[in-house]
Amino acid sequence: MPKQYVVGIDIGGQTSKLGVVDARGDVLSQTVIRTDTFGRDADAYIAALAEAVKACVAQADMTMEDIRGIGVGAPNGNYYTGEVAFAPNLAWAADQAVPLSKKLSDACGVPVSLTNDANAAAVGEMAYGAARGMKNFIMITLGTGVGSGIVIDGKVVYGHDGFAGELGHVTVVRQNGRACGCGRHGCLEAYCSAIGVARTAREWLDATDEPSSLRDVENISSKDIFDAARTGDALAIRVFEYTGTILGRAFADFIAFSAPEAIVLFGGLARAKEFLYEPIVRAMNENVLKIWKDKVQVVFSQLKESDAAILGASALAWEL
Amino acid sequence: MPKQYVVGIDIGGQTSKLGVVDARGDVLSQTVIRTDTFGRDADAYIAALAEAVKACVAQADMTMEDIRGIGVGAPNGNYYTGEVAFAPNLAWAADQAVPLSKKLSDACGVPVSLTNDANAAAVGEMAYGAARGMKNFIMITLGTGVGSGIVIDGKVVYGHDGFAGELGHVTVVRQNGRACGCGRHGCLEAYCSAIGVARTAREWLDATDEPSSLRDVENISSKDIFDAARTGDALAIRVFEYTGTILGRAFADFIAFSAPEAIVLFGGLARAKEFLYEPIVRAMNENVLKIWKDKVQVVFSQLKESDAAILGASALAWEL
Repeated sequence: MPKQYVVGIDIGGQTSKLGVVDARGDVLSQTVIRTDTFGRDADAYIAALAEAVKACVAQADMTMEDIRGIGVGAPNGNYYTGEVAFAPNLAWAADQAVPLSKKLSDACGVPVSLTNDANAAAVGEMAYGAARGMKNFIMITLGTGVGSGIVIDGKVVYGHDGFAGELGHVTVVRQNGRACGCGRHGCLEAYCSAIGVARTAREWLDATDEPSSLRDVENISSKDIFDAARTGDALAIRVFEYTGTILGRAFADFIAFSAPEAIVLFGGLARAKEFLYEPIVRAMNENVLKIWKDKVQVVFSQLKESDAAILGASALAWEL
Repeated sequence: MPKQYVVGIDIGGQTSKLGVVDARGDVLSQTVIRTDTFGRDADAYIAALAEAVKACVAQADMTMEDIRGIGVGAPNGNYYTGEVAFAPNLAWAADQAVPLSKKLSDACGVPVSLTNDANAAAVGEMAYGAARGMKNFIMITLGTGVGSGIVIDGKVVYGHDGFAGELGHVTVVRQNGRACGCGRHGCLEAYCSAIGVARTAREWLDATDEPSSLRDVENISSKDIFDAARTGDALAIRVFEYTGTILGRAFADFIAFSAPEAIVLFGGLARAKEFLYEPIVRAMNENVLKIWKDKVQVVFSQLKESDAAILGASALAWEL
């Protein structure tokens, strides 16, 4: 009988979440380890991760014999090389290329498949979520940054070098664009990430005298703006309209590329669906070529947020 | 023995070119018929086309028995449905969807594969041209309009509906962009097609008193600007610099999508390589994410221009 279980690992800057998952997408056991307590020692991190995998498998009353493989989503994870390379938020991979797939596979005795977090989310959404049954869609992750996973004919696009799908870094403002973490200016991420949204609010508060409950908040976060919008704060609502408009315009260009059936939104900021959906869809349909007007769905992830990252990564392992 | 010959048909607004092609990409015979003398009568056009196919095959000392299939490149040609639908430049398909693949296949007795002209060019470039051996590249056709064919993992991207790859209609100027033939504003095509280039020159001539040999030309075409640039006309050279800069910036965004190995340029305007290459490459590398800086090639088609359209379409038929 083929092995019926996989392990999904979501590597974030602070913590790594992992879980044992079955074919229905149920998470049977899960655990968390720190990512950021190993300094530059990649081997120590991978050893701790392998221990956590084994513990998590034992916790589900299994042995590694029951596990078909491990799927890993990590910042700058490269599907082709199995390396995590030059990831600014991971101290042990910030200035080196770490062969994570190979080392974790050696330590655990099962195959490992690695990709970046947004691609993993796309695979998860296709396997268990809002994109079930879709062959052509674009996953946009709205978190601290803006990531993307592009699926064409049922397969994630990795491109020539394994790094395809950096749609957070298309240029949306050509003149005097905001500085982006990537070192360039005017990127989608600089406007439509959680950080970008907070920046919009702070800029508008500084530039006007418009009353807003946000004036009482120190270090405004995207969560604060969401909360303010829910209480009817006009400025906060406009921040989401602005953000949604920029997203929708960018989506119109993405559609011209791969003619997807849907654009799927995921991530912390996607929780603001009630404020983002309408401006996104309006701007997208105002800006898209006529042949696609009102034809491309905008859908929000249906995965339980607590499980989604693990599920996404685990789905990679089914292809092993 | 498998059949060793295919027919390629390139349908343009005025003429349709067709030829018999062998596996090495040699055009053994070719002919041309009018596209624009059938009014709205699609059946009459297809009947004439089928006759021309048979005549062209006979001219190569063959019968239809020797032909594996027919590949067709046509404006708005849809790979999935085999239809040419709502193509503004084809009177017989301007306001209806014509099942060209089926009707031509019935008339000729061999299978027919149809796609749009830019996708056909991409397949041709992969089979016989500058993209031989490449699995991931983007074909940009710089003609009357700007078209594109996107190849990922060795396959043309058709998308959910068969219309993927309309990169001539990404928005490159968001505010006060030029009107585009598609009814929108600020499209890449409005700036970087042959028509767009001529428009740039006319706008600059109107706006300044700068001396230029182009002031003596009536109805300036992109060819006139090319000729002027070759004689050292400073304004004409700057028109190409401007055009190349807009292309290069757009290419930087395209790279973030599919991480191609190369961008391949084809079409009448690509003849101005000596003036376009440098600004394109400079703008592309100035605007692309660091991981792709100086890594993506910009190459110009190596197909003989007289044969290229037929070759591109014919290459589709090898997949039949």
